[in-house]
Amino acid sequence: MQSIYLAKIREQNPLIHNITNIVAANFSANGLLALGASPLMSANIEEMQEVPKISQALVINIGTLIGKEREAMLLAGKTANAVGIPVVLDPVGVGATSYRRETIRELLAEVKFALIRGNAGELAAIAGEEWQAKGVDAGLGEVDLKAVAEKVAQRYGCTVLISGAVDIVSDGTQTATIHNGTPLFPKVTASGCLLSAVCAAFLAVSEGNYFSATLEACVAYTIAGERAAQSLTTQVGQFQIRLLDELAALSPETIRQRGRINE
Amino acid sequence: MQSIYLAKIREQNPLIHNITNIVAANFSANGLLALGASPLMSANIEEMQEVPKISQALVINIGTLIGKEREAMLLAGKTANAVGIPVVLDPVGVGATSYRRETIRELLAEVKFALIRGNAGELAAIAGEEWQAKGVDAGLGEVDLKAVAEKVAQRYGCTVLISGAVDIVSDGTQTATIHNGTPLFPKVTASGCLLSAVCAAFLAVSEGNYFSATLEACVAYTIAGERAAQSLTTQVGQFQIRLLDELAALSPETIRQRGRINE
Amino acid sequence: MQSIYLAKIREQNPLIHNITNIVAANFSANGLLALGASPLMSANIEEMQEVPKISQALVINIGTLIGKEREAMLLAGKTANAVGIPVVLDPVGVGATSYRRETIRELLAEVKFALIRGNAGELAAIAGEEWQAKGVDAGLGEVDLKAVAEKVAQRYGCTVLISGAVDIVSDGTQTATIHNGTPLFPKVTASGCLLSAVCAAFLAVSEGNYFSATLEACVAYTIAGERAAQSLTTQVGQFQIRLLDELAALSPETIRQRGRINE
Repeated sequence: MQSIYLAKIREQNPLIHNITNIVAANFSANGLLALGASPLMSANIEEMQEVPKISQALVINIGTLIGKEREAMLLAGKTANAVGIPVVLDPVGVGATSYRRETIRELLAEVKFALIRGNAGELAAIAGEEWQAKGVDAGLGEVDLKAVAEKVAQRYGCTVLISGAVDIVSDGTQTATIHNGTPLFPKVTASGCLLSAVCAAFLAVSEGNYFSATLEACVAYTIAGERAAQSLTTQVGQFQIRLLDELAALSPETIRQRGRINE
Repeated sequence: MQSIYLAKIREQNPLIHNITNIVAANFSANGLLALGASPLMSANIEEMQEVPKISQALVINIGTLIGKEREAMLLAGKTANAVGIPVVLDPVGVGATSYRRETIRELLAEVKFALIRGNAGELAAIAGEEWQAKGVDAGLGEVDLKAVAEKVAQRYGCTVLISGAVDIVSDGTQTATIHNGTPLFPKVTASGCLLSAVCAAFLAVSEGNYFSATLEACVAYTIAGERAAQSLTTQVGQFQIRLLDELAALSPETIRQRGRINE
Repeated sequence: MQSIYLAKIREQNPLIHNITNIVAANFSANGLLALGASPLMSANIEEMQEVPKISQALVINIGTLIGKEREAMLLAGKTANAVGIPVVLDPVGVGATSYRRETIRELLAEVKFALIRGNAGELAAIAGEEWQAKGVDAGLGEVDLKAVAEKVAQRYGCTVLISGAVDIVSDGTQTATIHNGTPLFPKVTASGCLLSAVCAAFLAVSEGNYFSATLEACVAYTIAGERAAQSLTTQVGQFQIRLLDELAALSPETIRQRGRINE
């Protein structure tokens, strides 16, 4: 596959505004720095009309919603829409509680997203499909995930990335699958949250080509995971550290040589 | 010693609801994943009547209380009691401020705990003993800690685990000491918080045998620490990473062979 | 150079009260423990009249302000002033939003700081100089940073540390530069926040000698970074872990031998 956007991230060093959870905050910031982007973490409602204006993309992650974060997310999302930067939604554990479902319903109604990135259980919940999610983990179900990705992409006019053993990317008309990765990803907390942040960095430099930028982001990230997993002498603590190393070491050539996509 | 519960954790993959602090959130989630359990971190008062209902245990950790977290803890604790899942209390730094003392007093009055896990200073404060705690660290005192564990266990009808160079477990009638571990534990922040979360995973699969499940949890965790410490080439940064590795690598056989308990 | 304070930290194990952000909380706590100090993280307004009274220094870091944290910072700062412990200000991303600017203006008006520690962009913003900051990163500008450090130090009657490729320390009459360090520092999130916490530990044992304590703190920290960087087999994930190792391994002799200061 081609690599168009990684080099642009290293050149432009985009500022990524993250409204994220207390589990992922440090890991997401370090992952963005390793990749070559610049993180700014703020969920403060007092800043949500300003931070998106100095940023090149926004990530809204509902992992540990508290206090006025829901209102802050709505305000930041609307500001980001007004200034025209891409917004990524990570609907962490949306099926787990009515408050999460209601938050996602409201966000999807009031903010235009460039990308929704979640696991199978989260996207099935958004699509209204039967699924047995397990807290914030993917869980199990019999749904056709490609159809789910297409349906959600069409309904919200955005790109959708469903993460799993095979990753699925769809914009409602084109759908591709990615066959890179490692079973260690779900063993490290916030590895999905970091992927959402990584996607935001790729969207930030994509000039509106969200489908191909998401595809490259996901291939890049899962290759970094693959290489990190291959280098481990012990599991699984080291994986989170080695993943940061491999995000920093990624090159366009590696993406071209190792990317395994079916379009 | 026997190992009964570790295999059940790997089989049942229990969902553990953690109301925890901003220092421990990531480390506790990664530790639970490494062990074979599934973490869900939420301190959102809007979710406290739902998350315990889908979880197999609840941890209440007062390390960085803020906003409405105290009310959230009370609500989650009562919900957990109503549905019958075990609740673990980690009274971080309870002796340090009147707000922490008052929070713990209220929690102990309104929620039935299966286990209270803390350091010597924290348990001495709950028992009302003289003790020179140091912020959230154990500090120094001349108290008979076995007597403290028994007294608190009897008063609140629960199991008590006092962590230290020697760990003490009591349910008020039986008391045991654990002689595994490493002096590196207090050099890594949130290593006590993670132990509380690990205990919750063991209690979750124990069918009410909280004393023996706490014993196995503490032996398992301190053996993982022992092995992590032995493998270090440099100290102490690597310890937190290697501890996750060793939690993942633990086997019932290792617990049986290396567990050092006096009952 | 001399090393006066590192040995005192190991002897006295000062308790450092940190009001810090969700990105830095874990890393700062582990860094303080590695160094030999004792961290207590609390931003709870209900505790701000008590925690400074049991602490030997206070760090106020505005990285991810939320809820009532601004009021908590003011209250903690005033309490710390009343009991006479040193207060360190880390004005994270102060140029990025009006809320951050207003918070810093209010803190500087109502709290007496022993030290302000930030990057070039943050100190330029406080000095009122033209600067192109980038979110919470330093950014670029043409300002004479020594003059900025001196101006801010004089205006607020405190010591100022501007971190960068060359670090600048000034108390308004004396100014020194530090030539240790590694380009990896800005690649790891919260490495500036941890430096502020490390400075607080040195100030805590300095008996009011804030200029020389800041100088030793910064030399110690940047040498630890230098040694960590030299030992890496892969970058940059390992750096955060190795930095903790090297903070633990620091000796007065290493500071004396490797410190590179121009006074």
